[in-house]
Amino acid sequence: MTTDLMPNRYVPGEVELPARERELIARRDAVLGASYRLQYRRPVHFVRGQGMWLYDPDGREYLDFYNNVPSLGHCHSEVNQAIAEQAGILSANTRYLEPRLVGYAERLVSTFPLELDRTVFTCTGSESNDLALRIARLASGNEGVIVTTYAYHGTTASVAAVSPNLGDAVKLSPNVRMISLPGPEGIPQGQAADFFEAQVKAAVHDLQRRGTGVAALLMDSIFSSDGVWVDPPGFIDRGVEAARSAGALYIADEVQPGFGRTGQHMWGFERHGVVPDLVTLGKPMGNGFPIGAVVGRRAPMDKFGATARYSNTFAGNTVGIAAADAVLTVLHRDRILENVLQVSERLRLGISEMAAAYPDVRGVRNAGLFFGIDIGREHLSAAARRKMALDVVNVMRDERVLISTTGANEDTLKVRPPLICEAKHVDLFLEAFKRALERVST
Amino acid sequence: MTTDLMPNRYVPGEVELPARERELIARRDAVLGASYRLQYRRPVHFVRGQGMWLYDPDGREYLDFYNNVPSLGHCHSEVNQAIAEQAGILSANTRYLEPRLVGYAERLVSTFPLELDRTVFTCTGSESNDLALRIARLASGNEGVIVTTYAYHGTTASVAAVSPNLGDAVKLSPNVRMISLPGPEGIPQGQAADFFEAQVKAAVHDLQRRGTGVAALLMDSIFSSDGVWVDPPGFIDRGVEAARSAGALYIADEVQPGFGRTGQHMWGFERHGVVPDLVTLGKPMGNGFPIGAVVGRRAPMDKFGATARYSNTFAGNTVGIAAADAVLTVLHRDRILENVLQVSERLRLGISEMAAAYPDVRGVRNAGLFFGIDIGREHLSAAARRKMALDVVNVMRDERVLISTTGANEDTLKVRPPLICEAKHVDLFLEAFKRALERVST
Repeated sequence: MTTDLMPNRYVPGEVELPARERELIARRDAVLGASYRLQYRRPVHFVRGQGMWLYDPDGREYLDFYNNVPSLGHCHSEVNQAIAEQAGILSANTRYLEPRLVGYAERLVSTFPLELDRTVFTCTGSESNDLALRIARLASGNEGVIVTTYAYHGTTASVAAVSPNLGDAVKLSPNVRMISLPGPEGIPQGQAADFFEAQVKAAVHDLQRRGTGVAALLMDSIFSSDGVWVDPPGFIDRGVEAARSAGALYIADEVQPGFGRTGQHMWGFERHGVVPDLVTLGKPMGNGFPIGAVVGRRAPMDKFGATARYSNTFAGNTVGIAAADAVLTVLHRDRILENVLQVSERLRLGISEMAAAYPDVRGVRNAGLFFGIDIGREHLSAAARRKMALDVVNVMRDERVLISTTGANEDTLKVRPPLICEAKHVDLFLEAFKRALERVST
Repeated sequence: MTTDLMPNRYVPGEVELPARERELIARRDAVLGASYRLQYRRPVHFVRGQGMWLYDPDGREYLDFYNNVPSLGHCHSEVNQAIAEQAGILSANTRYLEPRLVGYAERLVSTFPLELDRTVFTCTGSESNDLALRIARLASGNEGVIVTTYAYHGTTASVAAVSPNLGDAVKLSPNVRMISLPGPEGIPQGQAADFFEAQVKAAVHDLQRRGTGVAALLMDSIFSSDGVWVDPPGFIDRGVEAARSAGALYIADEVQPGFGRTGQHMWGFERHGVVPDLVTLGKPMGNGFPIGAVVGRRAPMDKFGATARYSNTFAGNTVGIAAADAVLTVLHRDRILENVLQVSERLRLGISEMAAAYPDVRGVRNAGLFFGIDIGREHLSAAARRKMALDVVNVMRDERVLISTTGANEDTLKVRPPLICEAKHVDLFLEAFKRALERVST
């Protein structure tokens, strides 16, 4: 058995599948590396997407409440138009002068606090975090990294080594320390900042005793793989200061909360009122086009750049820039953040009603359109709660609504629709969720 | 001064630039990280590309004899059409069943020797090498890596640490060993295999004495950053076997030689008659769309995949797959490899004539459309040769022909046109090269 902590996946032999899917899986297994996983007990099979919907080969539609890459919806025509137009004109690299790259960089940086005024482009969120760690280590002169207990920050060797979420098979760096969050430890909100600060200080102390020092406190402010722990706003601030006092940089991983997912702000860290030293971007930046970035303060970026050359062939190419530029245009013009606030409120109310009616909805947390819904009453065993959450996800998959699980015990539903979600989609989700709870509740 | 070993770059204050470029550079400097470099003493400024040509804002055309990403030419209409069509249909990730991903994986793998029958997609060549090292380390149980003296394999922390080409500012891993190539050491071709085997054996022995063992021998078979050392075919074979005897995997970095650049073969390693354990792909795979891959033998891929989950959000998305699929279609249908053979022969003859006429053309080597041309007579100092090569490159840039430098002393011209290059482009290049030699020769 794998120990890769991805419970919501297809396990060969566990379910009967139709011939079409069986055959496609056999072909996949014969040619793709064994490190691939298929989501859901019964894998989904898609050939078309549009807006909030994905379609299987028989034309059946699935409501997408999970994918945070196509933030503006699947196959957004304006973003695609921008890609097609620019691809026909020029796809230049960053070693040539090209005005579009500079214009977008200015536009991107203008969405950040003034202190964050430099950017470097990458192709993926993993590359962004990998580069941010390189910068933090060079700028601080230290090696240690502090992350949360179930953090996931990406797939490169350096970043996987600070991603405990990948499971026992992927070795952690000797220089990483994991800290607990106040929420999952049951700490009252009034003591959350104290608790978090103490956690950071203990990790700093331990790393300093080993002589490695602390290069970075690396966090996703939604704490998505820890189970979505968003409150109280500001609880990270003194912990961040404690890390900084030790010479570390605070790297805000905005791959999950960034580009308006929280509704109130463009960037997740703003919710906590703390300005990071480096910010890493990925997933929704190009609505699916592979583009990411590091945005940062001038001092560490300059210190790194003075001696280290960073040339990422595809990153910042003019076509990716055109896609990302179109995303910003649509986000602003269509007032996507306002939509997130409105629609997430309707979703929160609906889930809260469900929580009142079904004791197996143990808790609900959200920041904008990123929801964590804890499943299984308190008295159930961890294994029983995990199974129930997995049952909910897979009943909903059979109802053709896509979500998944997260958290230390993977008993938290991860609900994360594209940001163009409307009231009618929320209602469809809530109806399916209610039917799933009827089916699996104790 | 930087120690990043990139001599062919813009240095502020060294040249007078027109106001338009001065202003764009000032805007770049104000918003982009300092790790960016501009190529050429006078940076080039492009707003459009087509086929073999790039165009500046005044409509002046530059002949591209350098870019190996747009292998089929800038703004290839069929590849762009494939991207636009698929972007309008679906951009799915690999956790969902989707037939196009599987079909392309089968097609890609069919271009390799039978032993190499598994693939995992990435977004960049750096991610490919990073993943290949993760696989090699897990499969071998060892940590050490052997690379050539001036190797460059990418930008992630793990890969930069085995890329001595990045210069002193980027720390090397304590577990990497650099080996010399027979060519730059002046070893006669008849002794090249012996020399190379001895180099590998010494590195293996040293790594074993440290207790780290050898996970990988990682090489680009064109040895592009070492100065383009391609002959004699087969000289690497016993060195590869020596590494394998120590439990290491041979990783062929095909980012430079792959997808037909050598003309004789689809893959550079075929020229040496050795089948690698893992192969890494990047740059030309999508003609500019960010896509890469690791192709490998079943045993190491299975061993890695059995425990490690590797989920790269953008990698293998249906749009990138469509781009890569179109590239393979065009490569086959338009008989690009045959064109490479024909055109490279014309180019080789032309450069050889120049070498006969100009003693400052010290040597010429090529495999298909990847040329290394050594500049500066033997008796000149290394610094004088380097300056002369840089002068040639920059005179040619002013003549609007794009090439650059490579090699330990950066006195080797790196000439690497898109593979659609025709006889008329070769003639234009040769004329400009002749004029440049007239200008800079001693």
